[in-house]
Amino acid sequence: MQKKLIFITNDDGYRAGGLDALVEMARPYGDIVVVAPEEAQSGMSSAMTSKVPIRLRKVEESDGLTIYACGGTPVDCVKLAMSHVFKRKPDFLFSGINHGNNTSVAVIYSGTLGAAAEGTLYNIPSIGFSLNDYSPTADFTACIPYGKRIIDMVQAFPFDENTFLNVNFPRLPYREIKGVRLCRQNRGVWMEEFEKRVDPHGQDYYWMTGSFLNHEKEAGDADENALAEGYVAVVPHHLDMTNYKELERLRETWKF
Amino acid sequence: MQKKLIFITNDDGYRAGGLDALVEMARPYGDIVVVAPEEAQSGMSSAMTSKVPIRLRKVEESDGLTIYACGGTPVDCVKLAMSHVFKRKPDFLFSGINHGNNTSVAVIYSGTLGAAAEGTLYNIPSIGFSLNDYSPTADFTACIPYGKRIIDMVQAFPFDENTFLNVNFPRLPYREIKGVRLCRQNRGVWMEEFEKRVDPHGQDYYWMTGSFLNHEKEAGDADENALAEGYVAVVPHHLDMTNYKELERLRETWKF
Repeated sequence: MQKKLIFITNDDGYRAGGLDALVEMARPYGDIVVVAPEEAQSGMSSAMTSKVPIRLRKVEESDGLTIYACGGTPVDCVKLAMSHVFKRKPDFLFSGINHGNNTSVAVIYSGTLGAAAEGTLYNIPSIGFSLNDYSPTADFTACIPYGKRIIDMVQAFPFDENTFLNVNFPRLPYREIKGVRLCRQNRGVWMEEFEKRVDPHGQDYYWMTGSFLNHEKEAGDADENALAEGYVAVVPHHLDMTNYKELERLRETWKF
Repeated sequence: MQKKLIFITNDDGYRAGGLDALVEMARPYGDIVVVAPEEAQSGMSSAMTSKVPIRLRKVEESDGLTIYACGGTPVDCVKLAMSHVFKRKPDFLFSGINHGNNTSVAVIYSGTLGAAAEGTLYNIPSIGFSLNDYSPTADFTACIPYGKRIIDMVQAFPFDENTFLNVNFPRLPYREIKGVRLCRQNRGVWMEEFEKRVDPHGQDYYWMTGSFLNHEKEAGDADENALAEGYVAVVPHHLDMTNYKELERLRETWKF
């Protein structure tokens, strides 16, 4: 059997601890090629770079592990890697492990998930992984065995090709994690407040802060809540954002 | 009756011709406040800026029209405006008119639609408008009467609060446009190719080019095709990206 080829990327940059943990998780499954951003690219969503050129450099090459750093966004990493790094289609794309959770509406802002979504467009089974701990020195130990269980399940029973998975790990020791729960995307919003400050030249500037507002705190089948309860939350996402129910209703109502 | 308050933004920057056209389209409906990026922010998706501060400056204020330029992304424009510009919730958010179409999978990359999606999270009825013409000097004349018909329809029969609209205008004279068609998101991908070049110092760099690959050219109910046929294509989108069908299937298949 041909060894599996695994594409790893992230949005925290190629030096992030979460990336090392993901490499450790994935190594038993095949050869790893990392193409990850040079610098942190959090909150970059599916942004891509077309107006300026980007760079790509090989950082490391050893047996079964090659690491490239790319000067663009997470989506740029995927597109450039598929165009110039991979000679054959990778068997998996894993993105993360993000330093910080990506539940609920984070799916639209997250660079981790932007990269996983992009993998889907290349028909690569893609999974975004995130740990509910924003610290640069977060402890990813418990993610590894749980991540492997999920990869094993995906290998045994693959998910649909239009789908990518969003996996969020709780910040708990291994023994305190309650299990894995298949979830839907929680409804909620990030409510940003901008702190207004004045610079040394007397000009205003604004700095984003924010907190998550959960619109459905009781729903156990929603990822945000499953994570809070101590489960690893897994959501199958797709890229068809059509609101079909509303489409039907508007077709009956609107006459142009 | 209180005059309507209309929030206009875009991703091509506050000086774009498409923004002027959108202001012209919207003025009969109420007072306009523009908060748009200082510079072009195409392909910025739902990216947001949290690691560096951003600026906001008033460019123009006249009767019924106030224009601000914001140093961030389209989503930053929405968040900062809602936090520091608007004293009450706007009645509408209109984003665009984008120079270039935003059909199919463009919904995940487009800054125009990133801003419209963000408006939805503030419970503002939000519409992204795009013209199928990338030229900086594109002619938006025919968009205005068609855009007004859509706004009239939305006022008479509002769409659901979890929904935002994606409106794409064909590049045709008014008389050649066939009408307005309610559509779903077309399945397709942007296939990027990176041109590899060598800089004056002998180092490689990569420049993105790309073309759209339509996975379903025959589907008349898909936005890409309706637009190609000469219709104004209107898609109701929502932000719940859960693949419910796959969630059900995986719940029956996967046992952890």
